[in-house]
Amino acid sequence: MAFPESVVLTEVGLRDGLQSVDSVIPTQKKVEIINELINTGLKQIQVTSFVHPKWVPQMADAEDVCASLSPGDGVIYSGLVLNAKGVERAAAAGLKRVEASISTSDTHSRKNANMGLDEAVGHLETMIRLVQEEGVEARGGLQSVWGCVYEGIPPDEQIVDMAKTVIDMGVVALSLADSTGMGNPVAIKRLLEKILPLCNGVPVVLHLHDTRGLGLANVIAAMEMGVNQFDTAFGGLGGCPFIEGATGNIATEDTVNMLDKMGVDCGVSVEKVAAVSKALEETIGSDYFSGKLYKLVN
Amino acid sequence: MAFPESVVLTEVGLRDGLQSVDSVIPTQKKVEIINELINTGLKQIQVTSFVHPKWVPQMADAEDVCASLSPGDGVIYSGLVLNAKGVERAAAAGLKRVEASISTSDTHSRKNANMGLDEAVGHLETMIRLVQEEGVEARGGLQSVWGCVYEGIPPDEQIVDMAKTVIDMGVVALSLADSTGMGNPVAIKRLLEKILPLCNGVPVVLHLHDTRGLGLANVIAAMEMGVNQFDTAFGGLGGCPFIEGATGNIATEDTVNMLDKMGVDCGVSVEKVAAVSKALEETIGSDYFSGKLYKLVN
Repeated sequence: MAFPESVVLTEVGLRDGLQSVDSVIPTQKKVEIINELINTGLKQIQVTSFVHPKWVPQMADAEDVCASLSPGDGVIYSGLVLNAKGVERAAAAGLKRVEASISTSDTHSRKNANMGLDEAVGHLETMIRLVQEEGVEARGGLQSVWGCVYEGIPPDEQIVDMAKTVIDMGVVALSLADSTGMGNPVAIKRLLEKILPLCNGVPVVLHLHDTRGLGLANVIAAMEMGVNQFDTAFGGLGGCPFIEGATGNIATEDTVNMLDKMGVDCGVSVEKVAAVSKALEETIGSDYFSGKLYKLVN
Repeated sequence: MAFPESVVLTEVGLRDGLQSVDSVIPTQKKVEIINELINTGLKQIQVTSFVHPKWVPQMADAEDVCASLSPGDGVIYSGLVLNAKGVERAAAAGLKRVEASISTSDTHSRKNANMGLDEAVGHLETMIRLVQEEGVEARGGLQSVWGCVYEGIPPDEQIVDMAKTVIDMGVVALSLADSTGMGNPVAIKRLLEKILPLCNGVPVVLHLHDTRGLGLANVIAAMEMGVNQFDTAFGGLGGCPFIEGATGNIATEDTVNMLDKMGVDCGVSVEKVAAVSKALEETIGSDYFSGKLYKLVN
């Protein structure tokens, strides 16, 4: 098993995790969690999303959260944007990196973003150009790459074409999301084999959900293909409220534990991340968590 | 990724799963579950253990459960035994296969079985001889092979020696248990590489717990080494009450789903197994379940 020597994790629990949590976490609590996450060794943290508060009340404090961050602390902070307004807000909030992504399923795109696939691609291109005009780095992404609960498995060639299109937009990274956890190691490898040669040095980040228990197996498959960047969420928080059963990112601490045990460096403390998860679970309950290791914390 | 063409699963939920469930399930309910499991396509089912009812009240009806089985229905039923009395009971109950296993950790062995390692090996040999004298097949196993919460990771050479010793006892299969879920794909492959050549055609069965989320990743690693037999528990039921945090076998339906998606045949219906798990969850609650897929059943 040939793995990358080291792996970079982007912590997305505060965004992809908290967006599914009904009770609004106070801004000060989020800031404390960010500081605790920095203390675990994480160097990339997605801290919020710039969406309309009507849709996701949890993210209404996006600007306040960003105002708490310390530029120059060596951590790359990012936020998710869905439209031009979000791009403006993220740039005004001082973020140096934003993420924009679209679905690869027409049905999911219409339900989630109210636009068909062709329109979504144009929309993504517009957003990414705006991001770049603001002098901010854009990470571009595709959702439901390994399957959609509405449409099943998309054809490889469609995903490859869309990936190439996103790469050509000048993104600093291409994120490929298994939003439904329908991916498996064979499918992960097959698609990466086709996409990686087209990336012209732009790194691919995998954003994997553990909905069907295959999250870490898929990380291994991707690492065997040379991928060394993954999104993870502390405690396995996460999910998309618009996709049935799409709960649970791969857990940061479970991923770190696996990497540690296999000799792959990521510079993050399992124990410290698990403690962050355990502390939040005591506040919001265990229903939002799908990770394993934090449960072993006494 | 070169996998075996097909895989055989042994369902252990009724034994390794139910032994951790406080409320005693009525015998008739267990019999119904067995019949439902047969209907999923499973061909090997561990139905009970022959332990003193004082220690595991859940298994007090071992004889009654066995009396309900239909010999000649093409399913291999087995039971766990811990001592000579258990062997006698299992044989008298008409089982054609029993499993006996010992820990590879001296501390775990003393806590769990009240004997040190050397004594445990002698004890296992005695049990397996008794099983064979009864004309019953013996599956011999090692526990905590990939780590013990008390002693950490055992030396490979100790495990290899113990595996060879068990093979030489004339077992029909060697089971290697990651009782604590501390194994990882690299360690799984490293140890199998040393053990498989010594097995003289005796199949190796992996019994994996998903305590740290690595269960299915470990299945893949083992399959890549040629292993094609695994223990699984419907719903991810399971655990060892004597090992802290050792909860959750890999879930039968999650494993089947992965195999199906990767084109590996096991002859079991994901949907039917998930329905069995969902139905039992509605009776005993979700705390005992660590599987993922059954949660998606409506």
